[in-house]
Amino acid sequence: MGMILYDLAGAEPARRFSPYCWRSKLALAHKNLDFETVAWRFTDKDLIASSGQGKVPVLQDTDHVISDSWDIACYLETAYPDRPSLFGADAGKALTNFVNSWADKAMAPAMAPLLLVDILDHLDEKDKPYFRQTREKAFGAPLEEVVASRDARVNDLKRVLEPLRSLLRKQDFIAGPSPLYADYAVFGNFLWAKCISSFKLLDKDDIIGQWRERMLDACGGLAKQSPGYDF
Amino acid sequence: MGMILYDLAGAEPARRFSPYCWRSKLALAHKNLDFETVAWRFTDKDLIASSGQGKVPVLQDTDHVISDSWDIACYLETAYPDRPSLFGADAGKALTNFVNSWADKAMAPAMAPLLLVDILDHLDEKDKPYFRQTREKAFGAPLEEVVASRDARVNDLKRVLEPLRSLLRKQDFIAGPSPLYADYAVFGNFLWAKCISSFKLLDKDDIIGQWRERMLDACGGLAKQSPGYDF
Repeated sequence: MGMILYDLAGAEPARRFSPYCWRSKLALAHKNLDFETVAWRFTDKDLIASSGQGKVPVLQDTDHVISDSWDIACYLETAYPDRPSLFGADAGKALTNFVNSWADKAMAPAMAPLLLVDILDHLDEKDKPYFRQTREKAFGAPLEEVVASRDARVNDLKRVLEPLRSLLRKQDFIAGPSPLYADYAVFGNFLWAKCISSFKLLDKDDIIGQWRERMLDACGGLAKQSPGYDF
Repeated sequence: MGMILYDLAGAEPARRFSPYCWRSKLALAHKNLDFETVAWRFTDKDLIASSGQGKVPVLQDTDHVISDSWDIACYLETAYPDRPSLFGADAGKALTNFVNSWADKAMAPAMAPLLLVDILDHLDEKDKPYFRQTREKAFGAPLEEVVASRDARVNDLKRVLEPLRSLLRKQDFIAGPSPLYADYAVFGNFLWAKCISSFKLLDKDDIIGQWRERMLDACGGLAKQSPGYDF
């Protein structure tokens, strides 16, 4: 018998819209595994009681009952290693490029408005007019005006960092048990701030702060040797 | 002779704060490669003219001159394959977890406020009170009120998607030349919308739309068979 996936449905039984169930269906298909779906509604808690929780996707593979789309992906990868990999031994570079892109396009833009004046203050005199002119053009306002709201704006950064925070509850480094370039791409942004600013980017109990301390010891403590402020 | 890295400096020559230069320094250290840094200021365009552009990091490795931190990382990985990998053959799962976390914590929260009423409209009658009650509690407002501003709010989603957009200019799928679970995690969110809503999430010329079309053909066209709306 193939596997059974409990799959969120609308009024039409065939309208299966859950993004998390889609992840599981695509993962099952990727591995060429036979599966049937059972239309499930939010209120059908009894149907998935054996999973010990109340949300779908729930996968039943003979005696195994697995919930949570990420756990299902990990289960399929481990239980069916001869099928096409879901995570890809050679995908590291491409996926690192995603993290790199996130560091560039989500994290850095949320950090820059907090740091502009601290950067200016640390520049060589000959660079200051260049920096002010190019950055004020980019931000459309005097640097001091952009930074004036940073006590409020830092919350935008904290929100942008939520995917990283959530990940670090599950693993020590972005790349797994030890740091790789994906970690350096993100840590580079924190070092940018550390070198020129004493402004606190994270709450004291933020798990990202613990990773940041671990990263200071990476590569023989390379980053520790640079002039800078305490995180 | 070791390599030379042109490294942005402040007024103090030792204050090296560029996040992109940090990525390159950490990458060089990770690979245990000898390198010297040269303090560079924004206005020292002449010093790096051989790179054909005006920004650091610029790496000079004997006859090779490479700019852009990502290109430097790729160069080091290719030119020094016997040194510790920067991208990691086994890092695929951990990095996929980052993409998964981004899909959960950045993308989905930006999509949900656009879709709540469309979801409600497609639910089984018995599920509607449950959905309204739990989601109105989470959003702190009537669903109709949350969705009323979606023509403006969709811009938040478009901004959140910028890392994906930037990545897809460089590679066909998130996981590289063909889709893996990282693609499914993100595509699942788009399918969520497709199944229940005709609201347009992307501009017509958005490169993410082309990836989304390619993903419809993934896994034997699995997602195409589900009742839904045109993207």
